[in-house]
Amino acid sequence: MKKIITLSRQFGSGGRELGKRLSEALGIPCYDHQIIDMIAEEQGLDKDYVARISEKAIQAFYPATIGRHFTWNPVMEQPMKVAAAQNDILKKLAEKEDCMIVGRGADVILKDMNPFRIYVYADMDARVQRCMAHSKEGENLSEGEMLKMIKKIDRERSAYRSQFTDIRWGESEAFNLCINTTGKEIKDLIDPIVSYINVWFQNK
Amino acid sequence: MKKIITLSRQFGSGGRELGKRLSEALGIPCYDHQIIDMIAEEQGLDKDYVARISEKAIQAFYPATIGRHFTWNPVMEQPMKVAAAQNDILKKLAEKEDCMIVGRGADVILKDMNPFRIYVYADMDARVQRCMAHSKEGENLSEGEMLKMIKKIDRERSAYRSQFTDIRWGESEAFNLCINTTGKEIKDLIDPIVSYINVWFQNK
Repeated sequence: MKKIITLSRQFGSGGRELGKRLSEALGIPCYDHQIIDMIAEEQGLDKDYVARISEKAIQAFYPATIGRHFTWNPVMEQPMKVAAAQNDILKKLAEKEDCMIVGRGADVILKDMNPFRIYVYADMDARVQRCMAHSKEGENLSEGEMLKMIKKIDRERSAYRSQFTDIRWGESEAFNLCINTTGKEIKDLIDPIVSYINVWFQNK
Repeated sequence: MKKIITLSRQFGSGGRELGKRLSEALGIPCYDHQIIDMIAEEQGLDKDYVARISEKAIQAFYPATIGRHFTWNPVMEQPMKVAAAQNDILKKLAEKEDCMIVGRGADVILKDMNPFRIYVYADMDARVQRCMAHSKEGENLSEGEMLKMIKKIDRERSAYRSQFTDIRWGESEAFNLCINTTGKEIKDLIDPIVSYINVWFQNK
């Protein structure tokens, strides 16, 4: 039984660390930012440019579009190509071998392959504190500025997600397991989640 | 470390079975419908009456109320008394010993005691199928009728919940762990959830 795991996460929830530790414990590769590099290489584009149009909502490029119904416009061409390349790469990765994919709407894009879909989140206070503790040297954001940044990223991820699915970002419905990391060390949560995933795939 | 566990569940998700099995595995009592009996006894009221006003939204008794802001009205007196008695009973149960409480907004009512809050849900198709398989003899609902009944109960629970909290029913934010039972046998999921709960309380 092939194990495809997708991990969606709130910024500051520790989701990336959880994905990394989980994939190590399961002995499967974890794809995160590497996907950006793959798209950039395949499309002959700059990595920063791909990261920018891939992270932000396509709508941002063409605000008059409503949901997925829009008139073709040349401004849309490049973002649509990037989105198509991403779909293609995610499907190829998942077809090749067991793997975990962090973010990128992979839970929706790979839905037909019946992946195990994890959502990692935390209370806002805990997210701010985690970000403050992990902020890079020289960043020096105040807690208020950090909160503002987190809320901005939430809005962007929510808009990004609305391109793929009608289910609201953060709604449990879209996932198999939702994990609130508030007040917890990520490393302590790994063993029972691995057990849960193994049981889930055994009884698929 | 006291283990207070609350379990909120979608109708037809297998949440009640999951609660029963989990509490057995953890060796703690599980309170579900017994709370209705306790309120009825304490208030000298009929059990069916308590179940009815406790399951439905208080708003239903007085449709002009908006959220929690309303003018006092004699029609409200009995439902408010039942709600107060329920709060009181839940707090006493949780103070007495480790326990699990299914439904009744216990996750919100007992929030100060920092309970482990589980949410159990499933895809709509899976809920309909589970309800069809478990329906009582002589019930004979069609799948369409079952779907209608589930949607009605969803609306009622959502309205019930809106009395306690501004967080929408089913939003992961209010819980520590959200479990999608779609396509799974409840019994297979118990061991890893027990491990997760134990780890969560050990690292509280």
